Amino acid sequence: MERIDLAVSTVIFALRPEPHRDLMTLRLPLVRRIREPYEGRWALPGGLLSPDRDLESSARATLVRTTGLTPRYLEQLYAFGGLDRSAVETGRVVSIVYWALVHADEVAQAIDSDNVEWFAVDDLPELAFDHRTIVDYAVWRLRNKMEYSRIAHGFLGETFTLAQLRQVHEAVRGSALDPANFRRQILASDAIEDTGRRLTGTSHRPPRLYRYNTAVQLADHGPLTPSKEQA
Amino acid sequence: MERIDLAVSTVIFALRPEPHRDLMTLRLPLVRRIREPYEGRWALPGGLLSPDRDLESSARATLVRTTGLTPRYLEQLYAFGGLDRSAVETGRVVSIVYWALVHADEVAQAIDSDNVEWFAVDDLPELAFDHRTIVDYAVWRLRNKMEYSRIAHGFLGETFTLAQLRQVHEAVRGSALDPANFRRQILASDAIEDTGRRLTGTSHRPPRLYRYNTAVQLADHGPLTPSKEQA
Repeated sequence: MERIDLAVSTVIFALRPEPHRDLMTLRLPLVRRIREPYEGRWALPGGLLSPDRDLESSARATLVRTTGLTPRYLEQLYAFGGLDRSAVETGRVVSIVYWALVHADEVAQAIDSDNVEWFAVDDLPELAFDHRTIVDYAVWRLRNKMEYSRIAHGFLGETFTLAQLRQVHEAVRGSALDPANFRRQILASDAIEDTGRRLTGTSHRPPRLYRYNTAVQLADHGPLTPSKEQA
Repeated sequence: MERIDLAVSTVIFALRPEPHRDLMTLRLPLVRRIREPYEGRWALPGGLLSPDRDLESSARATLVRTTGLTPRYLEQLYAFGGLDRSAVETGRVVSIVYWALVHADEVAQAIDSDNVEWFAVDDLPELAFDHRTIVDYAVWRLRNKMEYSRIAHGFLGETFTLAQLRQVHEAVRGSALDPANFRRQILASDAIEDTGRRLTGTSHRPPRLYRYNTAVQLADHGPLTPSKEQA
């Protein structure tokens, strides 16, 4: 029987403040391919499924190796298995794709290498294989399928200001929100609560810090137990 | 490198009226295994990924072969790839699982065989492999993740009465709904519209037939094109 290989890849999203823009940009890291097919093209971090790892821990291991990232939030996105997605040279590959949201402090730990670069999702280079389709699908899921509160939790730390939370929403939407309306709606929703603390810094009126009301689990796996093996 | 096999399986849901109960039951077909491992146990319909088919058409081909079913609604559910899920005899298998909703008239076309049987989801036999975990996850997704209107669309035809729609909601919830409240809420939601026609039958006051307001696509694939190859 013809061999079908199984790969695990990950779309990793992070938000980056831009010096000359109001909105942060939604970015993802890509890895430059150093061999054929598609040598020199950018691709999602990934690799063949390790025989001794489950799917999630294989995704994590590849991420550490290629980008240095260990995202706290990692969830299965979709399996891609079309007949036309692989190059003739490599034979058929089915890719199980994960997606991750990383905080700014996690991005700072990424490997600094010529072969890893962060790109804005609305300004991507030409990608290898069908990775552009995969990225488009992941961006669509991020924008449409997750509740905003959970998205924010993936990008922010345990506590955050209302302005930080609004900036996450704005970056994922790709457009600005009215601060007063946002404030009214988010406080009315009971999704977050005041920690009683304020952001420490130089301001003489430091903003309040909020946290999620309940222990919101970003990835709701239902009856599935998330992978116990964490890289 | 150690070989990892790739299987495609499907959880198929249908609703069945019960003569002595008000609620319909949520049911799924299982196939009796005719070889080791787990010979004699019930399992989800599935098989190894065909080298010449994409994931969805492989799921469809297996469904036709094992159950005779060709569901209109079929969507990818999750990929299961834990290290402990396979039997030692078969080596490691990663399963990409689809789920399907079928109408009563589709169920009527199912293969009549000693090795295929429909079970109520709350009264399942012992299943092979980790298929119980997979079924539990699929039931959880059905109950929690899909909008009710879309669930109904998967189980009903193009037009339906309010009573039929309520019965679908009740069966998936597993509990009865107040007919007057249900009627008020569903009509207020603008999800459905009156077709102007009535159910033909013996009643002297036949109930109105409704349809969805817009062409609601049950599986919203976003930028992904659904498989063109349909078995």
